[in-house]
Amino acid sequence: MRILVQKFGGSSVRDPERIKRCAQRIVASARQGYAVVAVVSALGDTTDELIALSKQIAERPPAREMDVLLSTGEQVSMALMAMAVDALGQPAISLTGRQAGIQTDAVHSKARILDVDTQRVRKELESGRVVIVAGFQGINAADDITTLGRGGSDTTAVALAAALGAEMCEIYTDVDGVYTADPRVVPTARKLADISYGEMLELASLGALVLQPRAVEFAAQHKVPVHVRSSFNYNEGTIVREERQVERGMIVVGAAHDTNVAKVVLRDVPDHPGVAYRIFSALAAEGINVDMIVQTTRQGEVTDLVFSTARNDLARVREIVSEVATNLGAGPVLFDDTVAKVSIVGAGMVSNPGVAAAMFQALAEEHINIHVISTSEIKVSCLIDQEHVERAMRAIHAKFGLDAASSVPNVS
Amino acid sequence: MRILVQKFGGSSVRDPERIKRCAQRIVASARQGYAVVAVVSALGDTTDELIALSKQIAERPPAREMDVLLSTGEQVSMALMAMAVDALGQPAISLTGRQAGIQTDAVHSKARILDVDTQRVRKELESGRVVIVAGFQGINAADDITTLGRGGSDTTAVALAAALGAEMCEIYTDVDGVYTADPRVVPTARKLADISYGEMLELASLGALVLQPRAVEFAAQHKVPVHVRSSFNYNEGTIVREERQVERGMIVVGAAHDTNVAKVVLRDVPDHPGVAYRIFSALAAEGINVDMIVQTTRQGEVTDLVFSTARNDLARVREIVSEVATNLGAGPVLFDDTVAKVSIVGAGMVSNPGVAAAMFQALAEEHINIHVISTSEIKVSCLIDQEHVERAMRAIHAKFGLDAASSVPNVS
Repeated sequence: MRILVQKFGGSSVRDPERIKRCAQRIVASARQGYAVVAVVSALGDTTDELIALSKQIAERPPAREMDVLLSTGEQVSMALMAMAVDALGQPAISLTGRQAGIQTDAVHSKARILDVDTQRVRKELESGRVVIVAGFQGINAADDITTLGRGGSDTTAVALAAALGAEMCEIYTDVDGVYTADPRVVPTARKLADISYGEMLELASLGALVLQPRAVEFAAQHKVPVHVRSSFNYNEGTIVREERQVERGMIVVGAAHDTNVAKVVLRDVPDHPGVAYRIFSALAAEGINVDMIVQTTRQGEVTDLVFSTARNDLARVREIVSEVATNLGAGPVLFDDTVAKVSIVGAGMVSNPGVAAAMFQALAEEHINIHVISTSEIKVSCLIDQEHVERAMRAIHAKFGLDAASSVPNVS
Repeated sequence: MRILVQKFGGSSVRDPERIKRCAQRIVASARQGYAVVAVVSALGDTTDELIALSKQIAERPPAREMDVLLSTGEQVSMALMAMAVDALGQPAISLTGRQAGIQTDAVHSKARILDVDTQRVRKELESGRVVIVAGFQGINAADDITTLGRGGSDTTAVALAAALGAEMCEIYTDVDGVYTADPRVVPTARKLADISYGEMLELASLGALVLQPRAVEFAAQHKVPVHVRSSFNYNEGTIVREERQVERGMIVVGAAHDTNVAKVVLRDVPDHPGVAYRIFSALAAEGINVDMIVQTTRQGEVTDLVFSTARNDLARVREIVSEVATNLGAGPVLFDDTVAKVSIVGAGMVSNPGVAAAMFQALAEEHINIHVISTSEIKVSCLIDQEHVERAMRAIHAKFGLDAASSVPNVS
């Protein structure tokens, strides 16, 4: 049995007409001989509408009940998709996350998939049915409905593809694939034919919203090739796969930017052991992710501690950090929500010195000041003023020869 | 543990404001010391909206997928109700039909409850939570979602009350209780303080829409007292209970009318064995209910066969009966969709001769012609022209002393 998993996002199933078009694609794949599992998101803005409804009832509804509520969105679309496929003469059956064996941990609203019991899905595929699965949802050990957090349907699709040994996991979305940068910011951005898991993971984490980081992680772990493509045309998209299969030898494959960023500066922090631990454990306890962290020692006794965090967490960060800083006897704390992060990503970087320097040069040539730098083996990120973000992205994109028909060499 | 089951219908949970008001009622009962199980219907017109959505996808969607789709309506309201109860400081948990152990047969869209596994519900009640259960839905042996058909939430509530040994099952609706007739047709109709299961079953089957017949059947089997009352005020409603507990000694407790009726007349049907079987088994095979059946022999060799059926089934009935009639060599078939059924119900009838005669007299005095008569131990029904239905109802209601402050005796 050649298994194909296809995932259709919220914009692909916005209304009955679009659902029918996706159904045609599913049926075409089935008629090519694939056993098809289609994972669907909620229709268009359903999730936001349900959240708004809950806000009319309670300010802070229990997370368990939010999951019960939100999971209905995908259940509606899975039923409609099964009806649409069936109407084309192709037997189909819809399964909730639970029925499809998506077992998660107990963390409501951002549960992680622990295991996939494929028994029911396999049985239905073997009987010749297309299986439509509700994305974004699963069941925990207490038999309660969980959701995987925003974009969780990608993870559902990849996890199912991994557990079923699918040939490919196709992610249908409203863009044509993975680009060297966001085309709305960098008009010369090019679509990549393929990209490695590691590069995709960095790009996704750095603000390229085309795929959920957790889904990429899952795909990498289980070596599931993922085809990111548009549900509005039949163009080839971008295949995310193992690095050794990626033939292109570009050093830098893409640039990403993220404006949901804020910078926090703690001045005159006493420079002794355990200080960083106290600050960051307090944030972690509230579930707040901290991104770039930089510490510089000044005058022996005190240091400045700088870090970035998501801008929409800033209110809570302000509360927590101000209290910790007072307790530590640190100096003033500064919060800056006018910054943005620009990054470059490429698996070839590690063996090519000078990549980071080239990025700094591109920014310097544009007279853009860098607040904070953070690097990994396959990425370099810089925090800059948000007002310069478009100019910075275009300069970086050009510098690394990512522009369409660029003559700048970018080959390892 | 004193258990109370409360069911809130679609009009009681139409919007967030109404949901909050129902939640207050639930919490009040919990604070009186009851372990409360609340069964909820879908919000207002949700079910109709989902049906309309499905029609945009497929003309005849598979019944299994319709159940998947429609069951989301109750899942939304159960989550919102749990949030509303929780917001009042009372711990609550929502459970789907499956989680609440509602096990049904396999007939999608009109499944019957076979068993209720109360383990989870009991566990939650024992831990001090109010349990909110999605009405109208269950799970079949294949682990697929089923729905119980229109009004199925009543049945869910009564089945849960029976399985849990609840003290009472309260049905909150948009009317004050069970009336001696529909007050919109008979302005002098009175609310009954109580009524027996048998009488309620007849009234419900004869067109009084306040309770589902199946729910009454369930309540009678398990001797669950059912309190039908309004969710918009705190008046006492009507208690449906065992006959020996009903203290009132009225012969006739109510009159009902139904305009979703059509009459079918088969003329000159050969009068030999098996003829009725052929006609009615053909209808039963299509799931069509036949109500009143009358056969009169004429001239030895042929008979006229008259029966009534639901008017909204008439198109299919016409098809089936015309074909059977031709095969039987019967005469012409006449279909009449301008009739209506008026009925009286009362457990005291069986021991009081002359009740049927009094009904015929009431109609005769109004010069209303009777097409078909059908009787049981506790009811008499007459098919009349629909145009006379209001006049007929008022006359019957007055004849049996059902009018408020009536002086006509109606005591056994």
